[in-house]
Parts: sequence; structure tokens; C-alpha cells
Amino acid sequence: MFANLITIGDEILIGQIVDTNSAWMAEQLNLNGIKVREILSISDDPQHILDTLVYSERTAEITLITGGLGPTKDDLTKHTLCKYYDTELEFNESVWQNIVRLFERFGREPKPIQRTQAEQPKAATVLPNKVGTASGMWFERDGRIVVSMPGVPFEMQYLMQNEVLPRLVAQQKGVPITHRTLLTACVGESDLAEKIAAEEDALPDFIKLAYLPSLGQVRLRLTGRHKDIDYLNTTIDAATARIAALIPEHLFGTEKQSLQSVIGDLLRESGTTLSTAESCTGGYIAHLITGVAGSSAYYNGGLVAYSNELKIKYLGVPNTILETDGAVSEACVSAMAEGSLRAYNTDFALAVSGIAGPDGGTADKPVGTIWFAVASRRTTVATKLKFGRDRQKNILLTAVWVLNALRQLILAEQDV
Amino acid sequence: MFANLITIGDEILIGQIVDTNSAWMAEQLNLNGIKVREILSISDDPQHILDTLVYSERTAEITLITGGLGPTKDDLTKHTLCKYYDTELEFNESVWQNIVRLFERFGREPKPIQRTQAEQPKAATVLPNKVGTASGMWFERDGRIVVSMPGVPFEMQYLMQNEVLPRLVAQQKGVPITHRTLLTACVGESDLAEKIAAEEDALPDFIKLAYLPSLGQVRLRLTGRHKDIDYLNTTIDAATARIAALIPEHLFGTEKQSLQSVIGDLLRESGTTLSTAESCTGGYIAHLITGVAGSSAYYNGGLVAYSNELKIKYLGVPNTILETDGAVSEACVSAMAEGSLRAYNTDFALAVSGIAGPDGGTADKPVGTIWFAVASRRTTVATKLKFGRDRQKNILLTAVWVLNALRQLILAEQDV
Repeated sequence: MFANLITIGDEILIGQIVDTNSAWMAEQLNLNGIKVREILSISDDPQHILDTLVYSERTAEITLITGGLGPTKDDLTKHTLCKYYDTELEFNESVWQNIVRLFERFGREPKPIQRTQAEQPKAATVLPNKVGTASGMWFERDGRIVVSMPGVPFEMQYLMQNEVLPRLVAQQKGVPITHRTLLTACVGESDLAEKIAAEEDALPDFIKLAYLPSLGQVRLRLTGRHKDIDYLNTTIDAATARIAALIPEHLFGTEKQSLQSVIGDLLRESGTTLSTAESCTGGYIAHLITGVAGSSAYYNGGLVAYSNELKIKYLGVPNTILETDGAVSEACVSAMAEGSLRAYNTDFALAVSGIAGPDGGTADKPVGTIWFAVASRRTTVATKLKFGRDRQKNILLTAVWVLNALRQLILAEQDV
Repeated sequence: MFANLITIGDEILIGQIVDTNSAWMAEQLNLNGIKVREILSISDDPQHILDTLVYSERTAEITLITGGLGPTKDDLTKHTLCKYYDTELEFNESVWQNIVRLFERFGREPKPIQRTQAEQPKAATVLPNKVGTASGMWFERDGRIVVSMPGVPFEMQYLMQNEVLPRLVAQQKGVPITHRTLLTACVGESDLAEKIAAEEDALPDFIKLAYLPSLGQVRLRLTGRHKDIDYLNTTIDAATARIAALIPEHLFGTEKQSLQSVIGDLLRESGTTLSTAESCTGGYIAHLITGVAGSSAYYNGGLVAYSNELKIKYLGVPNTILETDGAVSEACVSAMAEGSLRAYNTDFALAVSGIAGPDGGTADKPVGTIWFAVASRRTTVATKLKFGRDRQKNILLTAVWVLNALRQLILAEQDV
């Protein structure tokens, strides 16, 4: 079965928000064997919505719509769906009671404006939304399904998981699809392509390989479609393993892992601890590490040492290093990492100092010059990076390189 | 003039990446008076691409395509465009020289696989890409423009800014569009709608108001279209000012500002400094603050105090507070903020401690219980928040509340 996803709202078309809903929905549908044919973002103009509904029903069995259901005046979806299905709105007491309950939870009463959210099209099956005031609506006509959901991500996700996906799965029968993903860091797309060319060429017709680059990382995604699901799984697992074997130095994980979750697993399993000392990355690496649930088991904490004063006072970086080598130097990041081990009493530490930009560079150390170190109780490894002028990009890229170096250091120490 | 944006690639349809390119392009086009009619994400299937080109040329004068131009084997766009325009590829020496130059910069030589990237359709005007190996292609036929660009965000952005937008602006003549945006924090969409209802109802037909909620924040966007640009600007500025006057307590900025940039401006203008002491937000607030260029002028640094040991040792939180009140308490965050002022020698400080989840709660302090404090040399204000079980959401929401409280404290101190 195929689905089209339609996002309604001018905010996407003028670029004020990024459409993250569609990616989430597409992933969930895929996991349930439903292929997304097309994702469309359109304006909240009734005629545009109607035209797109006609197009979508012509090209896919399922149409999932998000957006345009809030209480404010720029919303139109519900009325347009009534027109499309030649039906009208009626007040729905159970939807209203849900709205009243949600408000009570915060010790408040719903406002008059909210009563319109309890009005539902007669032709629709109402999908109860326990986490928000806008219900979902399920329409079926001539074997085509159209579902309308609010655009607020966690409300849409609630409705998808509790109402929409279970119903879709109950209806579908299609060729199984499955995916495998290999995660690589600090290697470019072309280099990867050359390394795995032989295995890529040997893939059977029913398995496709895609390169998905992001800052400092490339994901390799294998997608297989075959009516025999056991044969499909066996074949795709073997192909994935053969590709993985060609890139041991770049591969850091699979599927939903991240550099920080892999590092967390390594530290937890070995009972070791970590601290951080960040200058130019300004807490971003600490944020990534602490984004992993349970990170308090191995992460003690760290310093965002933006000023030199703090590097000296709390990490014991010698004043002479700052005067001779400067804050962006091999000596400084090594001293910061080793100081972090001592100050925060950990087995591993990382340190970063650089010129993130867009200003602050010199002829000697232009913007984008970054030094980092990773350290254990026995080893300190410092590395210099040279990036461009984009502050955010420099911060994000640096984090990938630092975390990957830390991962390699932890693995190396385990092998000793 | 209207434009459609087409993104090609299975990676979006299976939800492995989020389409951030379209939002960026839409914003740039809008700023240049070109309205985006529709955003489409389609598969890299040649027939689907051809069908979508036909549809897009029927509904808009301009079609901008991203994706499907890399060197790896899952790319098809260039060949499909040749078919659509009944043309063929030819080797382009100047594109090849650019590829060679890019590789030289990293001390390397291009690989054979890269030679295909120098092949360009005869019917296209080649748009030189100085920051990547895939050129842009500009096609024009029967007054309709189709442009193909690589999907890598910074390459697409380079081509848009240096090649595509200047050409489009030279061609267009349309009704001017303009936008104004008001930024609010710590208030819900419905509450806002009630507060500004009178002014919203009084808006002229050619000005639309949209509510754009995100975690903890709502942006109010006014969009105006009118042939008389001076009248349009005067009218929309007046309407924006009238709405702003109704919500002084929630409004923190306009347009591209952020809580952290507003705070940065306040600190820089008053010559004061800031430090941070974060437990459950794990460096995320420091990351937001240091994401602002020039933040080293007012941000000294801070501690990610994940363990109690660090809270005691480096922030001087009394052991008795941790034993009696616990780390998630008014007393603890107040002591952390005041300790941060002293330890990092700053005029303002913020501190956070809470249970971000998904585990770690107690009956007394369930997951989502968060205390934070903001402090100046004279005043400390502590606040308790109660959120849900989602770790990332708790971290992001907390940051909004803490930064908004800090903003209010800085403003209050200025008024004294």
C-alpha cells in the first residue's frame, strides 16, 4: 500500500518552520510496510487543499494530512474536508469532555474559542486525542482512506501510534519492506562509495543502497522488498555484514545508535566515567552526552571554559601555555583534558578549544581552526581540525570528530 | 511569481532525513517576493520525477529541484532532466577543473567516479558550484524555469545565493509580499489568541496573521500583500505595533531574534557578564548561549554539574542542602546560581536541577520536576516547573523558561 503525506500551512511554505512531522510519519509507515509515495506541503487555501486531495486519492490508497486544526483563525482544514466529503459539522460531546479534562489538569477552564474544536464532520470517524484539544478525523470512501491530524508533533505522534497505524496495519497486505542502516563518521561519501563498490555492485535487484550524508557522518541505508520475508531478512543481513566488514575504521554503529549512545554503552559496560572541558563548542558536546537517558551513570560533568581565567583556575592549564601557545593549541587542549580528568575525577576526558567564528581569527589561526584532545589516565591524543567560517557548522562538525576520537580511545584502552 | 520546490530522494520518503532545504529556500524566495506554491518530496524514480515536472510546470512559473546529483549510484536526476528536455550529457571542462581544484585544496586527486559529475546536459546553463562537486543546472522553456541543485544544504545555499536568486529576481515582477514576526515565550496559543483577538479582527484583508507554536514559544507572523509597498509597510508596521502592545509580558523579540540573542544584546549593552550551572539540562543552555556569535564578550563559562560531588566542590552547595532538600530543590538551585556568580566571577548566573527522565523520579519528585534559579548580585529567583516524561522535550522546554526568566531579571535590574 502507498500513502501520500500532506502538510497544510503557510508557515512551511514561507520557510518559518521545518516539516519534521513528515519524516517521522514516513519512518513509522515504512516500519509497518506502507510506502510513502509523495510528501506535499501546501497552503491553507481551500481550493489548493481540495485539488491536492483529488490528486492524492488518485495516486495512493492512503492520504495522511497534518496541520490546520488549531483553535486560532488561520485554520481551514476541517471545513474544507466537510466540503470534500459533502458533510457538515456537529458538536461532539465526548470530544468536548476531553477538552474540558485537559484544561482541568492544568487547573483551568476551556475558553469559548475551544468549543469549535469539539465540532466534528458527521462523515468522519473521530480519533480521540488524549494529549491535545484537536481530534483526528478518519474518512473512508471508495476504498480510499484520508486521515486528518493536528500539526503539533507530539499530538500527531500520539494519534499515529494509538489510532492511525493500528487501523492501517489491520487493512494492509503488501510486499514486506525492510531496512538496515550502517552509521559512519569522519569519512566522505565518495571515499565510502569506493571502499564498498564491490559489495554494492553485487547487491541483488531487490536490495537498494542509499548514501545519506549529514555533517561529518554518512549513513548507509539498505532497503529490501521481497515477498518472502525470511529470505529477505537473511539476504539483507548478509549483505549488510559484508559491507560493514569493508569499513571497520569508519563504522561506529547501526540503526538508531549515535556516537554518544555508543560511547555511553562502552562506558557503562566497562564501569568507567567521563568528563568534558569545552571552550568553542560551548557545552554542545556535554548536551549530546547528557541527551542519552541514563548518562548520569558515567558522566560526572564538565566545564564550559569560555574564558582563559576559567581554564587556568579550574583545569590547571599553566599560564605559560596560554601565553606561549595560546588557547587554541595542542598544549592547551592536552592540558585541559588532563586537568578535566583530575578536576572531575574521571577515567576519560575530552577537551576542545578553537575559533568557531564568524570572527576572531588571525593569519596564524584562521576562523575554523580547532584543537581537541581526548585523554585517559594513560594516554592523551590531540588533533587539529580545519573547518570553514560557519559557527554552527564548526560546532556540530567538531562534536562528531571529538566523539569519534573518544570512542576510538575507549576501545583502544579496552584492547590493552 | 510562484515557485514549486521539489526534493528528490528516498531518504526523505522513508523518514531518514528531515527536509530542511525547503524551509530555507522558501524563506529566501519569500524575501525576494517569490511565493512558494507547493513543496513536494518524491522518490528518485525517473517516471515519478517526469510526472512531477509536468505537474509543477503547469502550476508555477519556477520549479526548483534539490537532490539526486551526488557521485554515488542512487542518483538519477541529471539523466531524467536530459530526457525531459530531450537533450544529452556532454563533458564540461570548466566543471571538471572546479572539481580538480576542490580536491587539490584537501591535498587529494579526484577519483574516476567524479568524472561523471563534470557531465552536463547540453540544454542547461551550468551554474558553477565553488563549494562542491555537483554543479547547478538552469533550464528555460516556454517561459518556465526549472533549476536543479545538489541536496547538500550548504552547496544548495551557495548556489541559491550566488546564482539562482539573482537570476530569479532579475526576471520577476509581482505584488510585493512582506512579513513581520513577533516572538513570545511561556504562553500558549489559545491564551495569546484571546489577548490579541480585538486587533486580529481589525486587520485589513491584505494582512494575514498566523500562530506558529514550538516548544515553549509561539511566533506570531503577519503576512501582507499589496501593490503599494509603502502603504503595505506602514500598515503592517502599525498593526504589528498594536498587537505587540497587547502582550508586553510575553513578547521577547521580533523576526530572527532568539531568547539567547536578546539576552546577549542586553548583557553586551550593559557591560555585564553571565555564567551557568546546569545539572539536568546538561550543557544545553550553555550551548544556546554560545551559539550566538560574540558571546565570549559576556559569557565567562559554566559548569555542567551532573554529579552532586561537583555541585559541592565547585559551586559550594552545602552538603546539608543536598541531604535535607535534595539536588532537585529550591535551596539547591539557589545555592548553585549564587555559587556560579562567585566561582565564575559574573554579574548574572542561572542554575538548573531536575529529573529529565525517562526514569529517576520518585513519588515526591516525579519525572519532569525541574527547579531553576536566576541570580544577580542582589537577587535570586527560583522557580519550579512540572513537565512530562520526555527527556529531550523537558530539556528544551526548561531552557526556554530559564532564559526567559534570566531576560526578565536582567531587565528588572536595569530598571532599578
